[in-house]
Amino acid sequence: MSTYGHLFRVTTYGESHCSSVGAIIDGCPPGLQLTPDDIQAQLNRRRPGQSNLTTPRNEKDRVILQSGLEHDVTLGTPIALLVKNEDQRPHDYSETDLYPRPSHADYTYLEKYGVKASSGGGRSSARETIGRVAAGAIAEKYLKQAYGIEVIAFVSSVGKVHIPFSVQRPAQDDEDDGKAEDALSEEFRQLLATITREQVDQHPTRCPHLETAEKMTQRIIRAKDNSDSIGGTVTCVIRNVPSGLGEPVFDKFEATLGHAMLSIPATKAFEIGSGFRGTEVPGSKHNDPFVLKTDGSGRLGTTTNWSGGVQGGITNGEDIYFRIGFKSPATISQAQATAQYDGTPGSLAARGRHDPCVVPRAVPIVEAMASIVVMDQLLIQNARKTAAALLPPITTLPKTMVMPGKVQNKEQNGTA
Amino acid sequence: MSTYGHLFRVTTYGESHCSSVGAIIDGCPPGLQLTPDDIQAQLNRRRPGQSNLTTPRNEKDRVILQSGLEHDVTLGTPIALLVKNEDQRPHDYSETDLYPRPSHADYTYLEKYGVKASSGGGRSSARETIGRVAAGAIAEKYLKQAYGIEVIAFVSSVGKVHIPFSVQRPAQDDEDDGKAEDALSEEFRQLLATITREQVDQHPTRCPHLETAEKMTQRIIRAKDNSDSIGGTVTCVIRNVPSGLGEPVFDKFEATLGHAMLSIPATKAFEIGSGFRGTEVPGSKHNDPFVLKTDGSGRLGTTTNWSGGVQGGITNGEDIYFRIGFKSPATISQAQATAQYDGTPGSLAARGRHDPCVVPRAVPIVEAMASIVVMDQLLIQNARKTAAALLPPITTLPKTMVMPGKVQNKEQNGTA
Amino acid sequence: MSTYGHLFRVTTYGESHCSSVGAIIDGCPPGLQLTPDDIQAQLNRRRPGQSNLTTPRNEKDRVILQSGLEHDVTLGTPIALLVKNEDQRPHDYSETDLYPRPSHADYTYLEKYGVKASSGGGRSSARETIGRVAAGAIAEKYLKQAYGIEVIAFVSSVGKVHIPFSVQRPAQDDEDDGKAEDALSEEFRQLLATITREQVDQHPTRCPHLETAEKMTQRIIRAKDNSDSIGGTVTCVIRNVPSGLGEPVFDKFEATLGHAMLSIPATKAFEIGSGFRGTEVPGSKHNDPFVLKTDGSGRLGTTTNWSGGVQGGITNGEDIYFRIGFKSPATISQAQATAQYDGTPGSLAARGRHDPCVVPRAVPIVEAMASIVVMDQLLIQNARKTAAALLPPITTLPKTMVMPGKVQNKEQNGTA
Amino acid sequence: MSTYGHLFRVTTYGESHCSSVGAIIDGCPPGLQLTPDDIQAQLNRRRPGQSNLTTPRNEKDRVILQSGLEHDVTLGTPIALLVKNEDQRPHDYSETDLYPRPSHADYTYLEKYGVKASSGGGRSSARETIGRVAAGAIAEKYLKQAYGIEVIAFVSSVGKVHIPFSVQRPAQDDEDDGKAEDALSEEFRQLLATITREQVDQHPTRCPHLETAEKMTQRIIRAKDNSDSIGGTVTCVIRNVPSGLGEPVFDKFEATLGHAMLSIPATKAFEIGSGFRGTEVPGSKHNDPFVLKTDGSGRLGTTTNWSGGVQGGITNGEDIYFRIGFKSPATISQAQATAQYDGTPGSLAARGRHDPCVVPRAVPIVEAMASIVVMDQLLIQNARKTAAALLPPITTLPKTMVMPGKVQNKEQNGTA
Repeated sequence: MSTYGHLFRVTTYGESHCSSVGAIIDGCPPGLQLTPDDIQAQLNRRRPGQSNLTTPRNEKDRVILQSGLEHDVTLGTPIALLVKNEDQRPHDYSETDLYPRPSHADYTYLEKYGVKASSGGGRSSARETIGRVAAGAIAEKYLKQAYGIEVIAFVSSVGKVHIPFSVQRPAQDDEDDGKAEDALSEEFRQLLATITREQVDQHPTRCPHLETAEKMTQRIIRAKDNSDSIGGTVTCVIRNVPSGLGEPVFDKFEATLGHAMLSIPATKAFEIGSGFRGTEVPGSKHNDPFVLKTDGSGRLGTTTNWSGGVQGGITNGEDIYFRIGFKSPATISQAQATAQYDGTPGSLAARGRHDPCVVPRAVPIVEAMASIVVMDQLLIQNARKTAAALLPPITTLPKTMVMPGKVQNKEQNGTA
Repeated sequence: MSTYGHLFRVTTYGESHCSSVGAIIDGCPPGLQLTPDDIQAQLNRRRPGQSNLTTPRNEKDRVILQSGLEHDVTLGTPIALLVKNEDQRPHDYSETDLYPRPSHADYTYLEKYGVKASSGGGRSSARETIGRVAAGAIAEKYLKQAYGIEVIAFVSSVGKVHIPFSVQRPAQDDEDDGKAEDALSEEFRQLLATITREQVDQHPTRCPHLETAEKMTQRIIRAKDNSDSIGGTVTCVIRNVPSGLGEPVFDKFEATLGHAMLSIPATKAFEIGSGFRGTEVPGSKHNDPFVLKTDGSGRLGTTTNWSGGVQGGITNGEDIYFRIGFKSPATISQAQATAQYDGTPGSLAARGRHDPCVVPRAVPIVEAMASIVVMDQLLIQNARKTAAALLPPITTLPKTMVMPGKVQNKEQNGTA
Repeated sequence: MSTYGHLFRVTTYGESHCSSVGAIIDGCPPGLQLTPDDIQAQLNRRRPGQSNLTTPRNEKDRVILQSGLEHDVTLGTPIALLVKNEDQRPHDYSETDLYPRPSHADYTYLEKYGVKASSGGGRSSARETIGRVAAGAIAEKYLKQAYGIEVIAFVSSVGKVHIPFSVQRPAQDDEDDGKAEDALSEEFRQLLATITREQVDQHPTRCPHLETAEKMTQRIIRAKDNSDSIGGTVTCVIRNVPSGLGEPVFDKFEATLGHAMLSIPATKAFEIGSGFRGTEVPGSKHNDPFVLKTDGSGRLGTTTNWSGGVQGGITNGEDIYFRIGFKSPATISQAQATAQYDGTPGSLAARGRHDPCVVPRAVPIVEAMASIVVMDQLLIQNARKTAAALLPPITTLPKTMVMPGKVQNKEQNGTA
Repeated sequence: MSTYGHLFRVTTYGESHCSSVGAIIDGCPPGLQLTPDDIQAQLNRRRPGQSNLTTPRNEKDRVILQSGLEHDVTLGTPIALLVKNEDQRPHDYSETDLYPRPSHADYTYLEKYGVKASSGGGRSSARETIGRVAAGAIAEKYLKQAYGIEVIAFVSSVGKVHIPFSVQRPAQDDEDDGKAEDALSEEFRQLLATITREQVDQHPTRCPHLETAEKMTQRIIRAKDNSDSIGGTVTCVIRNVPSGLGEPVFDKFEATLGHAMLSIPATKAFEIGSGFRGTEVPGSKHNDPFVLKTDGSGRLGTTTNWSGGVQGGITNGEDIYFRIGFKSPATISQAQATAQYDGTPGSLAARGRHDPCVVPRAVPIVEAMASIVVMDQLLIQNARKTAAALLPPITTLPKTMVMPGKVQNKEQNGTA
């Protein structure tokens, strides 16, 4: 339904043409400094009309906080926030009174609810994501302050225009096992390790590889000129996530992450680490060997990271990276042969101004959902760790059960 | 955690070496005829040792029902079931007392729980999926009886060996927009429309394209001979699902489906409909036009189905199909350079017998999780539909809000 | 946390001194006619300043709907609503900067969250209940329209002033088993069977027994004159609830109902049916015998109703009635010897205007929570019933398992 | 449904006459030493046939652990356990093939599920509580080891036989405000402060006041001799619970506690602290004044504890005590005039051996549910506390918002 999360819970509301859209964020830790500006920054990145590549509708989207804070500090109580809808009555959609837009939610919402809102598939509107982005900005601020966690997403492809070194070597049906690098180049992994949000925002496409960004621009303009649309992919990296997050068995880290990403409008695909292409690499080349970390922590890291920071559904402390596929927007002003609600064949050319490509604006949405997932999983794992740390050490176990180092750690500092 | 679902809830338990593995299935509709054989059939398809392609460990895996039934009819109360572990004490894994297996859950489970079970990442064991397969078989029986729903999964690739017509045309970074058929061939769509479980089981690889199946066999045997492993993909189609399933906004149908699939051990990727490759096709070619159904129902269908049966996160009544990527199994008997738990560098060659390739056995697991997702979403949507149908019709609405046909339907037969 | 319910979900937000209080109601059936007036009526009954018996603070409490409706019809999407706080900055509470109010949430909120809001136990404020009352009004409207369900609460006691015939005969520790009527008089059961909301609102105390109401008024005025406070009880009856609601085993109907009632601020006690006093009556006198209903439905009713409409945790179709105890409000302006936050002993006399007695205003809150509970349980049970009705009938069962009448019903009308 | 809890989750299964009853306990902290004996002790206290006061059915009820442990230490993974049903086929209940037992779940289960199990209201069976008691024993062991928490329940009344000093002074409808001690005597509070499980088990009735226990015995024997049944109350105290537990607003501590208690079969009433009687005491006499604790902790306690350890829905560190009312068992062998399922009037005398009074056996069930509630709330609160403690201190707040002592604590030891 409209609530996500267990201990950090986000409930959103709002359609395109109602009074406002917004969210209640429940479970934010108390004592976090938070101002509307912390949230507005990401809302501005989501907002349409940022460049000539996106829809020119003017949505100011100022966040208004309702509760949960005093003197810019969170109280631990629910934070309600809203953004007013300036355009509360539909004008442009009159054909869609007769026609369900092909591949849009108009038809399925009517099938689901039996009533047709003026905005068609109302909650499927991209405006619904305002609440998510705001909630994600709060989670992200906490994660940054408490753990130094960084969440950076960027556009990795628009149509067939990919960042070149992100393209995987075509699979060959042959005797050559290939190597894991075929699935993920060294250059791309370097990008993931170092990319900043500033680099992402250098170009309106939010593709940090500027040469590719220019090609993407051309691709989007071509779609726009054709009254057509085009899809793309967003890649995201999360750095400095502690190990141990993710709940066996149904709420593995990648399962909840995939759930969150596939709940973003227009998404159709998700892969983590080496993803689909990695399935073609044999285990001997795909496994990530362990090595003692050089940071003096006495902990293990991995020399490679084809797993994308998650093994057995649980984070291992390495960078988490993943890719999401967004289909081409369904609403286009080019005429399409289709049928009316009552089955009458006809042709629909959607009026109004529509995004020819959503991926640049999807970047902060992906970051928001990623932050929410990490936040919720972190709270759950901390509940367990805190509980385990309060138990007396057990000294009678066989060596095979608990590692000697772990038992010593437990005795020394009281944490399990 | 270990529970999945809202109204149809599955809770599993068990590791590799404890007394049993099993599940409690809560929320099964009362009055369903159900025998252990209904469940055993899918457990047998999941069981190792079915061919020389899978691990020769002998696991008989007989399901024993504990509750929730009388005279082979469900009571509506929780159905508990279990499968005994025959091998309750570990023998083969002694190196793994010192070494966490690379890319396995050994290390992350220790990080999560602070104690190391004899089986390493205990709940990440494939045996955990027994409870899911059993639960899925119950859901599947209900769905078949009440709706005629069919759930069929099959192996679409092993390593680089793909069913040829499932391979997508390589993306070209050029001016040619291409067509949606590049993402999904007509031949493959035909396969999805007609495939049966019998066809899938014709070959031990569970690939229904026999020529490809033979190549897959060679690929798996090569991995086995090399003491190595290999991954692959499973494709699944669900037919006859009613429209209207999937809960906006966080529990969209593909989001919950993706969640369920990515909770299966070793999965790293999920795509629905035209998936990643479809993001390269412009909206004008990717949208699925509507057409009046020829079945006399007066309802709309789509002429194409690039959406994979889901639009705006809600099912539209067309076939649902999706693909899942399984990485190569982490446990291999080939020596790997890695580190011990305490950081000491060394070389690990896992003893014991391990699956060189899991995808043939993953087929019933995918079907199980798909059935569970549909079942849970169906119950939720039926609660809403039943509730809406009891309201009096509203006659004062503007035409733009509710479709005339819908209002008439409401007046005529009392359903919304 | 701040969300209640499974399929009908209410999430509230807001403290005393933030911008607004409100709620998101998710899962309301689509197609329900709903105006702000439907909600405002109950908010007005909750509002302070309705009489000289309640706090004279002027709270206008106008509900503003944000989403989920068009043309006064619900869309099935989340309904967000808010009520602005007119007094957004605290003035009167300066002593409570130093002193936690005894038996108030000031201290426990600080213990819980580690930060102290200006309003002390902010979310424990009675203003938080605005969101609940609004949500309950929506549920109540649906229940009335779809099922004819009526939810009526009233004040049954203030301090020691009880409706006389609601007082249970004092327990005697003797050989006399007594009778069930000692626990619940015939006169009181008549009141429960017939009471209307209009009767309740005849008197500002919301006690429908006017002679008692006058005594209650005197009792409240005495508390007010003493700068003191007084508690009381609210009794509630729900009529026309279908049989079969309540989920075994943890979510029995009375368990979820008790949960909901005990989540209302200042509640300390809950009993259903004959309650505590009924525990003293032997089974032979307390059991409710079955009898064929005279309404021609062919269904069973009970001749008595000591169970309060719930047996085995599931509704049986009889009236549901229960009683809730509200403690005397903690905030009083009489001086109390207590300690400051830092332990310094002293004397606190709370400034400001406070309710000497909350029970009259608690009446719509009790009705709201009752409506929410019934609504959620109804949706869950309907999901099950609809699912079971789609299964083919089973003809091979022994007579002991399914009642012949039931099987015939199933065959005849397709419902289970 | 059959699952309780958020982070400590208990899912039970089983009816009277199926193969076994049991539970899956998910979320138990790893590293807890646990043997079957820890669980068996409470199961033995729940078991029928412990004395001539309870049903003589011989139920050995040996717990068998299935998963989640190695070498008697919890792994953090789900603990499955079961107890076999020795009597898997019904013999004694043949009248109930025709008659729904009055005030039993037979009828409501049939209404709910549409199928009638041989045991009637199968899941309403007291055997279902075996899973709860086992789960509670695990929670209790953790709480004892990690926090020194003690959970002690006892029988406070059987029929009209009450522990004398637990009886509240009859309410007088007069000008005298009375005092809080009328609701709860000093002697009873002393009992709550010091009672041990050994004292409870001194007498088969589990009433620690031996003189009263003898009278209770006579009352139960009278019921037994009359082929009748009798109800009673159980009082429970939980000591050493940390402050800060309970989630505003819907999951207040007493709301979740009440939910848990009212989910126990045959319960009809719940009150915490001074309960119903306390509603008659004015705030000036009922409020619990604060005082600096004498334990050098610098923390506040209260001089009285009419609140029962919970204020504003959150624990304050004082003893938590509450009382639960159990109705007289519905199944009696005395003949009752009632109707058959099909409405035919007749007389039912239930064959078989039935408990004339359940409260002595309810004691460990109450303790179990109390332990489960505290465990779950503790994990949730610890997640929040751990999260807040990681934030940097805020130095710019006005004095009115955060108490100086708190800020210093934060700066000194990094906990909020």
